[in-house]
Order: sequence, then C-alpha cells, then structure tokens
Amino acid sequence: MLELLGTAASRTARVLWTLEELGRDYRHTSIDHRRGENRDAGFLSLSPTGQIPVLKDGDTIVRQSLAINLHLAFDSAPNDLLPADATMRAAALEWSLWAATEMEPHSFFRLTEKAKPEDEQDRAGLMRADVAIRKALDCLENSLGDGDYIVGGRFTIADLNAVGPIEYLQRTAYPLEAWPRIRAWLARCQERPAYKRVLAMKAAA
Amino acid sequence: MLELLGTAASRTARVLWTLEELGRDYRHTSIDHRRGENRDAGFLSLSPTGQIPVLKDGDTIVRQSLAINLHLAFDSAPNDLLPADATMRAAALEWSLWAATEMEPHSFFRLTEKAKPEDEQDRAGLMRADVAIRKALDCLENSLGDGDYIVGGRFTIADLNAVGPIEYLQRTAYPLEAWPRIRAWLARCQERPAYKRVLAMKAAA
Repeated sequence: MLELLGTAASRTARVLWTLEELGRDYRHTSIDHRRGENRDAGFLSLSPTGQIPVLKDGDTIVRQSLAINLHLAFDSAPNDLLPADATMRAAALEWSLWAATEMEPHSFFRLTEKAKPEDEQDRAGLMRADVAIRKALDCLENSLGDGDYIVGGRFTIADLNAVGPIEYLQRTAYPLEAWPRIRAWLARCQERPAYKRVLAMKAAA
Repeated sequence: MLELLGTAASRTARVLWTLEELGRDYRHTSIDHRRGENRDAGFLSLSPTGQIPVLKDGDTIVRQSLAINLHLAFDSAPNDLLPADATMRAAALEWSLWAATEMEPHSFFRLTEKAKPEDEQDRAGLMRADVAIRKALDCLENSLGDGDYIVGGRFTIADLNAVGPIEYLQRTAYPLEAWPRIRAWLARCQERPAYKRVLAMKAAA
C-alpha cells in the first residue's frame, strides 16, 4: 500500500493529484508543517529536514514532489501520464524540469514576497522574478499552440507538474491576460475530476 | 546518431559528461551563446528561446540539461547511471530534483551576483541564498554518510546532476570546509576519466 505523508495544503497536493489521476490505492497521512507535525521524531526519520511530502512505497522512501510524481509515473508505466513514445516521454521530462527550474523558483519567490507587508517586499527581487516569469510563460504559451495539453495533445505528467507553479501566480493575482492559451489550458486542467477531488482535500486541510 | 548542441562552457557540460559516462556515440556542435550563435534562425527552430543545450536524438528534440540527462539515463537503461532497482532509481530521481530545486537556484544566483562589482551585488538576496545553500549542503552531507556516492555507494545520475550546482559554489570561492564528506565526494567525482575529458572540452571552449 502506498502512503503519502504531508498536508494537502502544500506541494503534497501535486502528488495527491498524480495518485488520483493514476487511480492508485493509497493512504494519505496529513503531516501539517503549520502545526509543527513535520518536526516529530517519527517523521524526521523519513525526512531528515522535515520536508513534505514523503511517499512510502513499500520499503522505498521518496521525497521531492516532482521526483515523487516522476517515480509514480515511471512506476505505473505504461499509463496515461507518461507516454510510452520516446519523443513524448522526453517532452514530458523536459516540461517537468521546465516547471522545476524556469517557473517554480520565480513564482514561489513571488508568492512568499507578496505575502509580506508591502514595505518589506524585495522590490528588486520581484522585478527580476517578473522578467523570468514572463519569459517562462511566453515559452509555454508558444509551445501550447492549438493543443489542449502540453505534450501530444493529451494530459500528461508535464501538465500536472506545470500547473502548480502557475497557480502560485494565480494566488498572487498575477495578470495572465497576455497568455490566453495558458489561461484556457489551466482552466482545462482545473476541470479534471481528479483535480477537483484534490481541491476538496485542500479546502478541508 | 545523437547530436548535442551547446558550448562546453555552459550547462551543456553536464550532458557531455553523461554521454561520456555512458560511452555513447555522439556529435558535439558548439553553439556558443557568448558569440550569439544561439540566436541563429536554424538554432532557434530547435530551441525557440535560444536556450542551450539541446539534444537531437533522431527525431526527438530535448531541452533542459537535467531533463536531457534523465532522458539519456532512462533511454540507455539498464545502465550504470540509472539503477534498475526501484528504490535506488527513486533515490536517483529524488537527488536529481534536489539538485534542480534545492541547490541550483541558490548557487546559480550566487554565481551571477558574485560576478558583479561588489557595490552592485544584491546583499539581501545573497544572504537568503546562503541560508538555502547551507540547508541543502547539510542535507547532502548527512545523506552521504560513509558512502562514496549519493545513491547505493556507486556513481549514478544523481551524483552527476548534483556536481554542477556545487561547482558554482567552488567557482565563487564558497568555503566548503564545514562539509568534509561533500568535499571528498566532489573530488571523487572530479577524478572520473569521463569528467576529465569534459574538463578538457571546457578549457578549449
């Protein structure tokens, strides 16, 4: 039995979404960092830095939400999330790493800075982040073209990994008007039944 | 025939290292961003943002150095870089994502800031980066334990992906004295024949 540890109100949500998309049987144990539950000795033996989420897959322990998602996708292959076709599989990896390196550092920085009182925000840092964000959004917008999803016209782990950092932008009221394909794609992803089930878990967390 | 595009004096080096470790037959085309060669129309048709490196694997085009490394490792599996064992494979993914998300954004920021005149450096940003860097180094130091390499005691794609961002620290004279296992591991990786061949390419680039 798979066990996923971490509160749905964290990056744990993206792994919950993967598990729901794959229809895997799993147990979710809500370790909530906001209540210090990630500093508990039992949890620290799984995740020495207290980082969530953690996946227990039999004797295999995996940390890092994007790594867990790739692990689950590879482990369940062939499946809908990871294309069997080598070209599409490579693209799914490429866009997962794009999300991790070109988008998330900047959108997460924006999220944490915008949570501070305005006069404590790092203005120079926010301007630098915005340049990177616009470049990354342009890249995705162009790549989406007329397709419904990022890779091969169907929903894959690439979409799933890319949604999270773009939702950080939504949460900080970032104006996405200039990227209409991204807005339509995001709405499409957020309409998925598996996504909605995770949204309910987030609301309850 | 595999073709790798990008100058060895860039993140292209980590893919060259992977190709050398795997003993793959490949052609290296030096696209040098410092000479604007990545703005050439032919190259932009492969990499619309001008980003290097790009791998051409038959009809498959892959961008993002870490994605290319994972693609090559998966594509050549079973091989020495990607363990067949599910637990070790998961750990190799985890540490590759650790390098991409916990280490590289901060060490790369340090590298770019330290290249500026001292009075133009973002001091608040550098202090924030340093906190993240120390946390990430502690995490790797503890995980190395008595092992020669990060995963399962032998060299894998996890080591290869982790070396790059730590070399950024070396290039900015970051004091690594407090992390003796990392220093020994880094020296061990840098002694590898495949690494030394890439070092020669970097020197010539």
